[in-house]
Amino acid sequence: MAYDNNNVFAKILRGEMPAFKVHEDEHVLAFMDIMPQADGHVLVIPKVPAVTLFELPADAAAQTIQAVQKIARGVNAAMDAGGVVLVQSNGEAVGQVIPHVHFHVIPSHIRDLGRHAAQMGDMDKIKALSERIAIEVAKEFV
Amino acid sequence: MAYDNNNVFAKILRGEMPAFKVHEDEHVLAFMDIMPQADGHVLVIPKVPAVTLFELPADAAAQTIQAVQKIARGVNAAMDAGGVVLVQSNGEAVGQVIPHVHFHVIPSHIRDLGRHAAQMGDMDKIKALSERIAIEVAKEFV
Repeated sequence: MAYDNNNVFAKILRGEMPAFKVHEDEHVLAFMDIMPQADGHVLVIPKVPAVTLFELPADAAAQTIQAVQKIARGVNAAMDAGGVVLVQSNGEAVGQVIPHVHFHVIPSHIRDLGRHAAQMGDMDKIKALSERIAIEVAKEFV
Repeated sequence: MAYDNNNVFAKILRGEMPAFKVHEDEHVLAFMDIMPQADGHVLVIPKVPAVTLFELPADAAAQTIQAVQKIARGVNAAMDAGGVVLVQSNGEAVGQVIPHVHFHVIPSHIRDLGRHAAQMGDMDKIKALSERIAIEVAKEFV
């Protein structure tokens, strides 16, 4: 599948759309999901353009999961949820919506995911959570 | 959380319990989930003992996700599902059952996961699927 440079995450990476960022470095960007499955739902994306994990270069996959480890620890610390679930969908047929590879980091029980219809979250609340999470994530990247 | 050497996946890694393996190398083992959420549901585990992704050494995390990429491509090719979803739970509080870090590779729509109660699958069917998947996965590791 060809990469679409106008997908939402490509625009966020270029700064053409806003996002509540919780971490950014040369390899990845992490920001709040604005249609959260739970409070503290964060997305982690590689900066390399790739639609799915299938096409992501192996070195970018390694850099991304290593960032996910740190971000997941930060989310866990910030949200005090007792753990986090990673979800990563590859292919429109299985529910991938945005065609840029992304890892969901969700501090919620697996059984509670996908229960509610996708809808916009409370932006003030998401912004406040992003600030709390960013503080904990920063501790992981020192 | 301390690692329990007697968890089911540790036993499978030591050959003390059987599994329908689809790939094994020095870093990871991949085998069929016998309580599948969908046909072709595979688990990928690092050989390093770690309860969650939080404690997994960064190099092992990299090796594991790079293996997951190949195994996911193999599952996708074998099952012709139009994609695969990765799910990876960290913490008993969010639904992790076996205390050894594992990635679920599931060729099914995200909305269909977790719908049915966990129950044993048809072993003959799982064995047959394991053989079909192993052939496709092997092509990814050449």
